[in-house]
Amino acid sequence: MRFGVNHTPSVGWFHSWLDFSPSDTARDMEQIASLGADHVRIFPLWPVVQPNRTLIRRQALADVATVVDIAGSFGLDVNVDALQGHLSSFDFVPSWLDSWHRRNMFTDPAVVTSTATYVEALAAAVADKPNLLGITIGNEVNQFAHAPHPTPHDITAAQGHAWAAAMVAAARAGLASGVDLEARLGSAPSARPGTGSRTRPLVTVAQYDAAWYDDAQPFGPEHAADHGDATVTHSWVFNGSAALHGALGAGSVRHGEYLLQLAAAWNHDAGRPNWLQEVGAPTNVVDPADAASFTKQTIRHVLDAQDVLGVTWWCSHDVSRSLADFPELEYDLGLFTNDGRLKPAGEAFAALAHEHGTRGRADTTGAVSAPPPATALVLDDVLADGTARGGLRADCAPGGRFAAAWLDLASAAADGRGPQVVLRSRLHDDALLAARGITRCVEVPEGAATALLSVAHPATMA
Amino acid sequence: MRFGVNHTPSVGWFHSWLDFSPSDTARDMEQIASLGADHVRIFPLWPVVQPNRTLIRRQALADVATVVDIAGSFGLDVNVDALQGHLSSFDFVPSWLDSWHRRNMFTDPAVVTSTATYVEALAAAVADKPNLLGITIGNEVNQFAHAPHPTPHDITAAQGHAWAAAMVAAARAGLASGVDLEARLGSAPSARPGTGSRTRPLVTVAQYDAAWYDDAQPFGPEHAADHGDATVTHSWVFNGSAALHGALGAGSVRHGEYLLQLAAAWNHDAGRPNWLQEVGAPTNVVDPADAASFTKQTIRHVLDAQDVLGVTWWCSHDVSRSLADFPELEYDLGLFTNDGRLKPAGEAFAALAHEHGTRGRADTTGAVSAPPPATALVLDDVLADGTARGGLRADCAPGGRFAAAWLDLASAAADGRGPQVVLRSRLHDDALLAARGITRCVEVPEGAATALLSVAHPATMA
Repeated sequence: MRFGVNHTPSVGWFHSWLDFSPSDTARDMEQIASLGADHVRIFPLWPVVQPNRTLIRRQALADVATVVDIAGSFGLDVNVDALQGHLSSFDFVPSWLDSWHRRNMFTDPAVVTSTATYVEALAAAVADKPNLLGITIGNEVNQFAHAPHPTPHDITAAQGHAWAAAMVAAARAGLASGVDLEARLGSAPSARPGTGSRTRPLVTVAQYDAAWYDDAQPFGPEHAADHGDATVTHSWVFNGSAALHGALGAGSVRHGEYLLQLAAAWNHDAGRPNWLQEVGAPTNVVDPADAASFTKQTIRHVLDAQDVLGVTWWCSHDVSRSLADFPELEYDLGLFTNDGRLKPAGEAFAALAHEHGTRGRADTTGAVSAPPPATALVLDDVLADGTARGGLRADCAPGGRFAAAWLDLASAAADGRGPQVVLRSRLHDDALLAARGITRCVEVPEGAATALLSVAHPATMA
Repeated sequence: MRFGVNHTPSVGWFHSWLDFSPSDTARDMEQIASLGADHVRIFPLWPVVQPNRTLIRRQALADVATVVDIAGSFGLDVNVDALQGHLSSFDFVPSWLDSWHRRNMFTDPAVVTSTATYVEALAAAVADKPNLLGITIGNEVNQFAHAPHPTPHDITAAQGHAWAAAMVAAARAGLASGVDLEARLGSAPSARPGTGSRTRPLVTVAQYDAAWYDDAQPFGPEHAADHGDATVTHSWVFNGSAALHGALGAGSVRHGEYLLQLAAAWNHDAGRPNWLQEVGAPTNVVDPADAASFTKQTIRHVLDAQDVLGVTWWCSHDVSRSLADFPELEYDLGLFTNDGRLKPAGEAFAALAHEHGTRGRADTTGAVSAPPPATALVLDDVLADGTARGGLRADCAPGGRFAAAWLDLASAAADGRGPQVVLRSRLHDDALLAARGITRCVEVPEGAATALLSVAHPATMA
């Protein structure tokens, strides 16, 4: 299984794109590599790269490409997220999409076309890098699509699908035509070498967990499972899990595993990789003294799931106390302190990465993890008449009826592994079940409901 | 009288701060200097300089200082605006003041303190430049304080005064302590030379004309006249003037002169300079074929006003058609085309600047213009009982009762000069009237009202 780290630059946080320093980047990457990580995830800021709708800054793309090269020099593959968008409570929306120029970011034709152009250009800028793990179209962009965002760009699920498809297509076009980047940006084509026989980089869609837990969120499970090359999950136990189960309770340290299993239920291809792209130990619900234990237990449980591409910890470095207005937890999410000292959670991560990781021996797509658990819990996605069931996602949220049943089943398992999840609508797809290695389907017991906690994220979401 | 130009960078517009190019800047400045201009006004972007509330980027300040030096090498003085804020329909608000972090930009204590820190640091960064004309606390920041802004930060007039006073104090502190900038930014003090005997740079507060015309706008005439070292006006005839009077009608080509006279009425010091800091020929109401005539007539009328520090044309260069989403008029406001060809309006400006300008012989504060018109029109700012009169500003707006009377009086003047304006509340301040050279006061005739046009600016405001 791949072990990776979300890179939060130690100097200047993501504002460091404004003062890009290869040496600062190299120091961070050297530290991340020392953990035994095989990859990092990096985050350009959208308004910095595309300050006008029709201006994509060549230097900004070059800086991203340089980070990929620097990471590569430390043996790290790199996943590049395009639309930030949102990071650690801060929104970065270009001026051409805000205030007097506010238009729906998911549906306005000019906006979608120009956003796709950015995603394509970014992908093209790194397409020829041998250590490119993939392109994510943006970090939790679904946050902008609904409450509790303060000024959401409301859309329907269908509009979300159209947007995600357009962005994934743009990323793939950029990856395919990287050599033409210069031509498309207006100058002569470069003589860049092709990517040769390298494994195709992944294109992914990242969502915060309202996609799985909030029935009102336009982006849902299908948006994760139907687009791109892997199904991405982000696990944050400040979503109610820790409040309900305690920071080190099973419902917290298995939350990453649970999300991976829940998400996999929507995959149409049994072999589609699942990627726990974000998980961290937020101090608002996890005592710093418990962070190492939380980290260790979380990753051990993730190792029990099948078809896991990897786990990518949030994050590499604590935010500097010299920067204001972050939610308190952001100052202590790093595996390293801001000045580069390894923290106990970092030690725990490193021990597991060295023991179980694939650093130096991974390809970019092989999800090599445990054989699938034979048992699957049935999720009622449809009513008896075959129509979609309302309230499905609330049932799956921490404390919900389905989540509680999954946790009970996981806790009772002889091998300690949580069950897979199968949708009722696919319960009779024998080929799919066989491909997934499911030999036993279990129904959620009657009366399993637990008090449902709100899963609306505060401004503390990462 | 000073002649200046608002610098709109020809390459990359204000996004060029992200890719700062001294040579691009030098080419623009050389062109501006060729017009006979003695100064430029420049506009750092707030989120670029202060991306986190407690992070003021050293390199961004250095870039601003470099622009001041480059301008100086072409004989140009420089006015630096701090809080952009707003430019040509685009808002640039730092992420720490928007969305999840939205707080009132004028009243939140942490925001005001940090904003003042930025203004101070910016002023300090250029304090030792011999060609520093001054610091404006920001371009038309009052746009953010009320409708029609899409998401205004509503305040009272008193809160506006407190904010303006804090920002002016910050700018003055920065100018006074420029040598301490490095120390205040956290590293060792530099050995910068002091400013010696140079004339003190001006600190000013710039407002869009709702300050004069819209009774609901929290920032009003007093905010312009009571803070800083000069009273600033911005004249845009898309505010209804051109619609009412025609692009070349007296109410349009005298709008700059009128605003200067209107604003001067609130000055407590008869000798306080008045600065027409923005005026331009917007093509949504001024046919491009009329731009040169509009420019020439506008400046000739401004030359007739007293105590005018200068006129600063908007703008130096057309916005490139390669940049999207600007209001159409912005692509044609330059005295130069985007690729540096002098336009007819530029020729008109240059002829007047060479004839009447002070390039090479100005100091930074001397308002040297015409002797004051002897006649003043009385503006009813108070009721008979001495209390403030509601609707005052609507009367002053284009088509309003007072504006119409001023225009009639101006048109009838034997010397062609528009009258001064005196507030009813100061009508018996003999010393003030004597100092202003007012020997004849005229009442607005009864029944002078004209149909009032809306002066609410569209998203086309510069």
